[in-house]
Amino acid sequence: MPDMPDLTRRRLLAAGTFAPLALGATRAAGQQAHGTPLAGDFLLPDRPGEKLRWAVVGLGNFAVGEAIPGFIDSRHARMTAFVSGSPAKQKDLGSRFGVSRFYDYANFDSIANDPEIDCVYIILPVGLHAEYTIRALKAGKHVLCEKPMASTSAECEAMIAAAKAAKRQLGIAYRIHFEPTNVLARQLIEHGEIGDIRFVSADHGFNADPQYGPHKWRLEKALAGGGSMFDIGIYGLNTSLMALGREPDELSARYIYPRDDPRFREVEGGIEYRLRMADGVSVVGSSSYSWNPYISQQRYMGSKASLFMKPATTYNRNTITIEGNGPTREVGAGNPLTQFAAQIDAFSLAARANTPHKTPGEMGLRDIRLIEAMYRSADNGGEIVKL
Amino acid sequence: MPDMPDLTRRRLLAAGTFAPLALGATRAAGQQAHGTPLAGDFLLPDRPGEKLRWAVVGLGNFAVGEAIPGFIDSRHARMTAFVSGSPAKQKDLGSRFGVSRFYDYANFDSIANDPEIDCVYIILPVGLHAEYTIRALKAGKHVLCEKPMASTSAECEAMIAAAKAAKRQLGIAYRIHFEPTNVLARQLIEHGEIGDIRFVSADHGFNADPQYGPHKWRLEKALAGGGSMFDIGIYGLNTSLMALGREPDELSARYIYPRDDPRFREVEGGIEYRLRMADGVSVVGSSSYSWNPYISQQRYMGSKASLFMKPATTYNRNTITIEGNGPTREVGAGNPLTQFAAQIDAFSLAARANTPHKTPGEMGLRDIRLIEAMYRSADNGGEIVKL
Repeated sequence: MPDMPDLTRRRLLAAGTFAPLALGATRAAGQQAHGTPLAGDFLLPDRPGEKLRWAVVGLGNFAVGEAIPGFIDSRHARMTAFVSGSPAKQKDLGSRFGVSRFYDYANFDSIANDPEIDCVYIILPVGLHAEYTIRALKAGKHVLCEKPMASTSAECEAMIAAAKAAKRQLGIAYRIHFEPTNVLARQLIEHGEIGDIRFVSADHGFNADPQYGPHKWRLEKALAGGGSMFDIGIYGLNTSLMALGREPDELSARYIYPRDDPRFREVEGGIEYRLRMADGVSVVGSSSYSWNPYISQQRYMGSKASLFMKPATTYNRNTITIEGNGPTREVGAGNPLTQFAAQIDAFSLAARANTPHKTPGEMGLRDIRLIEAMYRSADNGGEIVKL
Repeated sequence: MPDMPDLTRRRLLAAGTFAPLALGATRAAGQQAHGTPLAGDFLLPDRPGEKLRWAVVGLGNFAVGEAIPGFIDSRHARMTAFVSGSPAKQKDLGSRFGVSRFYDYANFDSIANDPEIDCVYIILPVGLHAEYTIRALKAGKHVLCEKPMASTSAECEAMIAAAKAAKRQLGIAYRIHFEPTNVLARQLIEHGEIGDIRFVSADHGFNADPQYGPHKWRLEKALAGGGSMFDIGIYGLNTSLMALGREPDELSARYIYPRDDPRFREVEGGIEYRLRMADGVSVVGSSSYSWNPYISQQRYMGSKASLFMKPATTYNRNTITIEGNGPTREVGAGNPLTQFAAQIDAFSLAARANTPHKTPGEMGLRDIRLIEAMYRSADNGGEIVKL
């Protein structure tokens, strides 16, 4: 059991295969253990008084498979509540993760009266982000909201205003900022490993064909907010800007899918864009819902070397290849699954100190504004939009 | 000796390491042999009367290392003359390749009176392409001219007019059209292996620092015509359009190098561009003289699969990776060195029949016009240029 890969352990746990008592033994495998869990309450924190208490809102695939397991290795957070329209899901997950406080979407606002909730993690369809984020802030809770932040920049602005009014923190769950291989890539770039960056390319896409998976919500604007750029292209956008550490001053974009594809009546099926930095660097990105296979890759072309990531932004395996500046070498940086725990911990510390999270609402707003500018450009034949 | 890799054999031959008599034995290694060479005249053709007779103009690194060795395996061409300003180079190469007719740039026009020359292969700096191509056409010879075709589209037009006036063929040496792995890539795409193409990216660059190699001529506009796009970016441009089999109707481009890099006073050090097809496909390309290491890669994103080439357009090793549409697989397609012989043979057959070469002057003109349009766009902040 201690040799079981962490990924498998989590998947089994998420699937309910492990009994709670088994977790204590597996927890030390590949991860730092923070004490011995008590029998029957394996998620009881080591120093419970110091852990922020979280409500998870929305129990869909991503929540169950990735976000919730992230709490297992968290040092500063523990789950205390689930918000869902499905009592069955709450009961099942509650028994597995030691969570017993359940809310639904009708009585959600009553979390204001629950002192066992410090932070709320919004993992709902994008179209519901603004509403539930604002309701949680009004209830006096700090909010970590999944990416993309909301359907429109106006919604993002309202969310930021609500956080300010409530004097609470609002973070956007850009997990890549906490993913070890991406963190290493940024450090390598900052430390001059590839020299001056000349050019960045970022391509992210997959085939969102409803017949191949639960993609239907992705194609509905009311739920998804936008198309491929909202869902998958935002990784390339946000990560490129993270690595460059500066903002573009103009952009242009073009749609890249057949206009007659019936899937893409409400949201774009693909788009490619150019961001221009004042110093002459271009970031060229693309995203698509009509590529096969899943592609997640980014390349940083430098004066000394090229840093390539493929895959670049997955949950569980990212790789850096550096070419030039010595022999070609592949670099990884630890277990990518730690990104979920690291993100929850970072937000917990920000909430406790009531200081901004590393990826705050303002970053989410910036990205939605950039995507809206891409749509404006693409709607007008690729015209240049000044930012 | 028969097991010696073809590449090594050619390099040694080009370097003068092999005595002529040794070639007969090595010729069959990995290549189809077309008869037994005669002792002392190893380049005597099998059916000499059926081989077109070529003059090679310019004996620089590329001519000696790549183009001239291509004649060894040619079935329809043989070299009969060298044109150079260096009698020593002519003598040395002449003794190795069985060529004894030597011209210099002063008496070049007298090739008109030499019945032992059918075709002329122009391997001069770009700034001299138009002049020597037109002089050779006026001398009544067919001309294969290296890429890029010339410094300006006006020069290209004059070259095409000269070919028409002389009733001779003018081809541009786009070797990739004859390189087996690229030919296979085009066939795979045509036969639907990756489905409908959604997006194409092409990146080609290297570090043209004079301290690292004979790059000085590349930075002089009078010799090179243009910068990274002329020299290396043109591969991505031409090859993408070859694979797509259709032409763009607009483009935009931005320079991607620091404006204050002292190397790039005369020609651009890097540029990235977007070609738009009427059907909504974008080709996004880049080229640079300030990247490290050498990068040559192209990706075709399709509805069924992705076809990736890295390296894509080298002399001696190109690889296709297909992801999606079954297990990921790498594909090669025979000895890339055959591209040089295949190109010479194809042009020889075109010249003999006096019908257009596969990559005619008009294709060279198209590419120079596209690059000029890129420069116009980049000079105007990336404005869209209608084609």
